[in-house]
Amino acid sequence: MKKLSLLGATGSIGRQTLDVIREHREEFSLAAFSAGRNIEETRKIIREFQPALVAVARQEDADKLKSEFPFLQIMHGEEGLVETAVFQQADMLVNAVLGSIGLRPTLQAIEAGKTVAIANKETLVTAGHLVMEAAEKHHVDLLPVDSEHSAIFQCLQGEQEKNIERLILTASGGSFRDRTREELKNVTVQEALNHPNWSMGAKITIDSATMMNKGLEVIEAHWLFHLPYEQIDVILHRESIIHSMVEFQDSSVIAQLGTPDMRVPIQYALSYPDRLPLPSARRLNLLEAGKLHFERMDQERFRMLALAYRAGKAGGTVPTVLNAANEAAVAAFLDGRITFLQIDEMVERALERHESIAQPDLETIQQTDKETRNFVHSLL
Amino acid sequence: MKKLSLLGATGSIGRQTLDVIREHREEFSLAAFSAGRNIEETRKIIREFQPALVAVARQEDADKLKSEFPFLQIMHGEEGLVETAVFQQADMLVNAVLGSIGLRPTLQAIEAGKTVAIANKETLVTAGHLVMEAAEKHHVDLLPVDSEHSAIFQCLQGEQEKNIERLILTASGGSFRDRTREELKNVTVQEALNHPNWSMGAKITIDSATMMNKGLEVIEAHWLFHLPYEQIDVILHRESIIHSMVEFQDSSVIAQLGTPDMRVPIQYALSYPDRLPLPSARRLNLLEAGKLHFERMDQERFRMLALAYRAGKAGGTVPTVLNAANEAAVAAFLDGRITFLQIDEMVERALERHESIAQPDLETIQQTDKETRNFVHSLL
Repeated sequence: MKKLSLLGATGSIGRQTLDVIREHREEFSLAAFSAGRNIEETRKIIREFQPALVAVARQEDADKLKSEFPFLQIMHGEEGLVETAVFQQADMLVNAVLGSIGLRPTLQAIEAGKTVAIANKETLVTAGHLVMEAAEKHHVDLLPVDSEHSAIFQCLQGEQEKNIERLILTASGGSFRDRTREELKNVTVQEALNHPNWSMGAKITIDSATMMNKGLEVIEAHWLFHLPYEQIDVILHRESIIHSMVEFQDSSVIAQLGTPDMRVPIQYALSYPDRLPLPSARRLNLLEAGKLHFERMDQERFRMLALAYRAGKAGGTVPTVLNAANEAAVAAFLDGRITFLQIDEMVERALERHESIAQPDLETIQQTDKETRNFVHSLL
Repeated sequence: MKKLSLLGATGSIGRQTLDVIREHREEFSLAAFSAGRNIEETRKIIREFQPALVAVARQEDADKLKSEFPFLQIMHGEEGLVETAVFQQADMLVNAVLGSIGLRPTLQAIEAGKTVAIANKETLVTAGHLVMEAAEKHHVDLLPVDSEHSAIFQCLQGEQEKNIERLILTASGGSFRDRTREELKNVTVQEALNHPNWSMGAKITIDSATMMNKGLEVIEAHWLFHLPYEQIDVILHRESIIHSMVEFQDSSVIAQLGTPDMRVPIQYALSYPDRLPLPSARRLNLLEAGKLHFERMDQERFRMLALAYRAGKAGGTVPTVLNAANEAAVAAFLDGRITFLQIDEMVERALERHESIAQPDLETIQQTDKETRNFVHSLL
């Protein structure tokens, strides 16, 4: 029985993680979880999974839950997140929170020797060097949950890093793949949230539409698989059936394919290195699909991808700025305060004004993150 | 340095195996090889690779070579094949001979504890149970060289057999994939030898046109990967870019892709479990390919595939008959003695008259093989 702590239980990945636990009650249990402000769903999760520790965002919600569940340990705020991440009874942390707020809990879980299943890509983008250094130092496995990185991780089983020629991340192209930049001027939040293949949370769906999501994934792949950016390619693949590929030195390519069901990579991280059945998953039917298409990624059209490559190669605090500016700008777009194309613009402006700091420590990263958000807010 | 013995050095797979050795002189050497009747090429191989033992088909050729290469051990006939296979200085046998004549050398190499890279699918079709039993008993690795089986083998690295849902072999459809049976009546040998994707030997190219090749591969996969026929599917994939796939219990599919270059699976078997560079191999360019297509295999149209599934499921001596009848019929077609559709017909007639013997030993298999060939010859 693997005992899990789960950060972000009421988000899209969190809910699907709970689904996987439901399908395998003999294999997994929920020892602790964090949720944000959705107290009604938090109650339901407590009743169903009987964890020992729960963390919510606000103190008033924590107080309310304490009176309802007197035998349960209930915390709140960032301290709650960290305590959930390092919870002693848990063997493994599933980090499914959104944004760079996941960084400290991840680092502390690693220091506490927990295996970390990481769906929180912003953590690796903002401070990949710190996370990877800590994982190496504490001999901790970092297991990817993102479908692309899970695909690559699956393709690399039984293989040696030295034999990798390049990683090929596939991109569906997002909600606006067939629109020109001109046509993106007046798109609405509702249109942007309408992803052609995957049903995901709002932030990642917007990131898919701007192609920043693929940019963040490139940086994430750089850290997870220890490869220079020159060995990480992106290809447009509308069907999202091939989730990603690895090309080896001998020209052989290994790919992972499947239907767009995030429970598959989540479960793989949880069951790794074994696999478990997932009978409720729809099986891939290539006859039904009939064709798979591949196209070049247009980095002129999708400027955020080019920007992410540049930020990744620059290193230092530049990826921190890329991520923080993007988080702030996407939130502003979702609030209706800026237009879709202003997301790109704000990220570019934040990057332009920033002077990079090499080898930043945690404090410098958190400071840079905060300053960048303040800068974006000042533009609104 | 791995020392190889190579059966069938002047055939298509044999020549490409020599190419791989040429690319990696530090890694591989040729300790022994067998050739058929191509004495000119045999001489060249001796001069270039300096082996210690050579076997040819006929005694007169052996005698000729003995006078030319007095310090070389030279043998002939089936005994020569076997001695090459078990040659003491070799660590590994690459079995690239054609047809069920490869069976005895394979079994003896396994008994001598050699790793066997097997391109000779007829051996596994005719006596899979004997080969697998021997490999298990002597703790010997059987490494597939066929591109489809190498693909599956690569997809299975780091995975557990218990988690396999099914194997999906891809088929290009062969030279006649777009013709009806009616249109196959008068096709010539030349037309049949014109494979759309792969450049291979004559026998396997004809087997691809009749789809018997895929049938033999299904039986080979059954033995190599210990799976019932119900878990082995075939899908038509015109581009031959995905070489085969494995679907796991969690619905995840792992595939191996590449350009149609047999040196890649050959080299993988030789370098296994490592990979080596192969700079002269053309890299896969999915942007150039643009699209991958998948279609249902029509088992009415391609009767030999249905026949092979039936023979495989029946077991006993039935696959031996399937293979021997096919070898004899294809040889007759290549000699211009029967028409293309008569290949199917002769295999069907041989299967109809045969009464299966369960759990056949080597002698029974060799007897069945011989009787079947005699029966087909009697029809000519």
